[in-house]
Amino acid sequence: MKIAYQGEPGAFSEAAGRRVAPDAELLPCKSFEEVFAAVEGGQANYGILPIENSIGGSIHRNYDLLVTHELPIQAEIELPVVHQLLALPGTTIARLRRVYSHPQALGQCRRFLERCFPKAQLEAALSTTAAVEQMLSQEGAAAIATRRAAEIYGAQVLARGIQDNPSNKTRFVVLTPHDCPPTGRDKTSIAFTVAHDRPGTLVNVLHEFSDRQINLTKIESRPSKEELGVYIFLVDMDGHRADPPVAEALERVREQAFFFKVFGSYPRYVPAA
Amino acid sequence: MKIAYQGEPGAFSEAAGRRVAPDAELLPCKSFEEVFAAVEGGQANYGILPIENSIGGSIHRNYDLLVTHELPIQAEIELPVVHQLLALPGTTIARLRRVYSHPQALGQCRRFLERCFPKAQLEAALSTTAAVEQMLSQEGAAAIATRRAAEIYGAQVLARGIQDNPSNKTRFVVLTPHDCPPTGRDKTSIAFTVAHDRPGTLVNVLHEFSDRQINLTKIESRPSKEELGVYIFLVDMDGHRADPPVAEALERVREQAFFFKVFGSYPRYVPAA
Repeated sequence: MKIAYQGEPGAFSEAAGRRVAPDAELLPCKSFEEVFAAVEGGQANYGILPIENSIGGSIHRNYDLLVTHELPIQAEIELPVVHQLLALPGTTIARLRRVYSHPQALGQCRRFLERCFPKAQLEAALSTTAAVEQMLSQEGAAAIATRRAAEIYGAQVLARGIQDNPSNKTRFVVLTPHDCPPTGRDKTSIAFTVAHDRPGTLVNVLHEFSDRQINLTKIESRPSKEELGVYIFLVDMDGHRADPPVAEALERVREQAFFFKVFGSYPRYVPAA
Repeated sequence: MKIAYQGEPGAFSEAAGRRVAPDAELLPCKSFEEVFAAVEGGQANYGILPIENSIGGSIHRNYDLLVTHELPIQAEIELPVVHQLLALPGTTIARLRRVYSHPQALGQCRRFLERCFPKAQLEAALSTTAAVEQMLSQEGAAAIATRRAAEIYGAQVLARGIQDNPSNKTRFVVLTPHDCPPTGRDKTSIAFTVAHDRPGTLVNVLHEFSDRQINLTKIESRPSKEELGVYIFLVDMDGHRADPPVAEALERVREQAFFFKVFGSYPRYVPAA
């Protein structure tokens, strides 16, 4: 089994792929478009795509790819964003002068760095794995990256879990060309567009769900890029699209929408105890 | 008049501040927390805060700051994300070997860079202004940054508007310690929390708006970090909180919510023709 992900070995998305299927072969891709192409072209069985972060919000760019491609969501996974401070074996904390990482990772560890390394110079890298590569060729340097990157590059973990926000999580979806049958603990993700310039249009649509006792777990509007006054709604709900109440509600929403798409029905993610 | 912003002179947020008040003095801050502190402490009259990007989505981290601080929104502004390719005066495109910028800006210009500079090496910087500083000390280097950064650092604009996505926009809000009186073309931003584990709870709340003919321009749910099954809703609507129908709806929502906060009523942003 092959899972395509964006980034290089040791990247955060690779860790998500390994969590989904520990024994799978992981196929690195340069871009999210390449992840879709790899699954569509049969080079990979699955693709993994970050879709939402608890600090940054929904990743609209990747939702756009779900709209323009035809790969249903097969599963979801939530991964806490955990950063590690890596250095060459034998490096001592007292000798650290520079810390390399992607600016977002450096920002997520700002308080730790200010407290522990107030004099270290922060150096930007294109990715956390690129940061490890740069760190390897420098004396007195460290990098912020994943534990897996430490294994791959033979680096030492100087400090674990250095992120400032312990509740930062990223939600990934797993894509595959096939629909997922009901499991009894499913959710369904959809996108639709309704004219949003009249009060009540959205409420009428949402009634299709509440009248059928369907619980919504996510609802988000974003302005359409194409037409003023038109909004795209992203909605997640409990239940499988094949469940009669969900199927009925989706059919009614489809009738009222300019644009309507089901991204898939898939098992709800339940973190391991 | 002083406006606090996050970043350095030439940063994107500075451009937003200058657009809000061309003659204001702009006060650079290291973090968004410092922007709030500058306005709360009286060092600045206004603070400017990016809140939503059309590609990246809502910036939850900055919404969290609106929740924990008491600075009402006074105005909003939308700015297209426009990137420029800058270099030292006299640099020719043929001699470009390296392009510096924040990884996000490099990513937003990926197609341009692949087409025009397939052999140039991409180099990460902590910010677009840091990229310009690094570029200045290198032969054959360029940076992706704002037009204003070119002025400040005496750089030359080699290519304008090199971003791949022409509709990428960032929405900023302007914060100040005082409420804004009605203008007749206002919107109101709120956050509230309702138990979301029973179908229909959200629909009942949204009825408070649609029953009073109040148009919602944004609605977004996000899971609460503290309690499972509790969601925070971010809602923008047409109208001022002092308008009787809006005031009435807000009062009813407040009664049903665990947590309720008005971020402010302020004039709707209308792009200049």
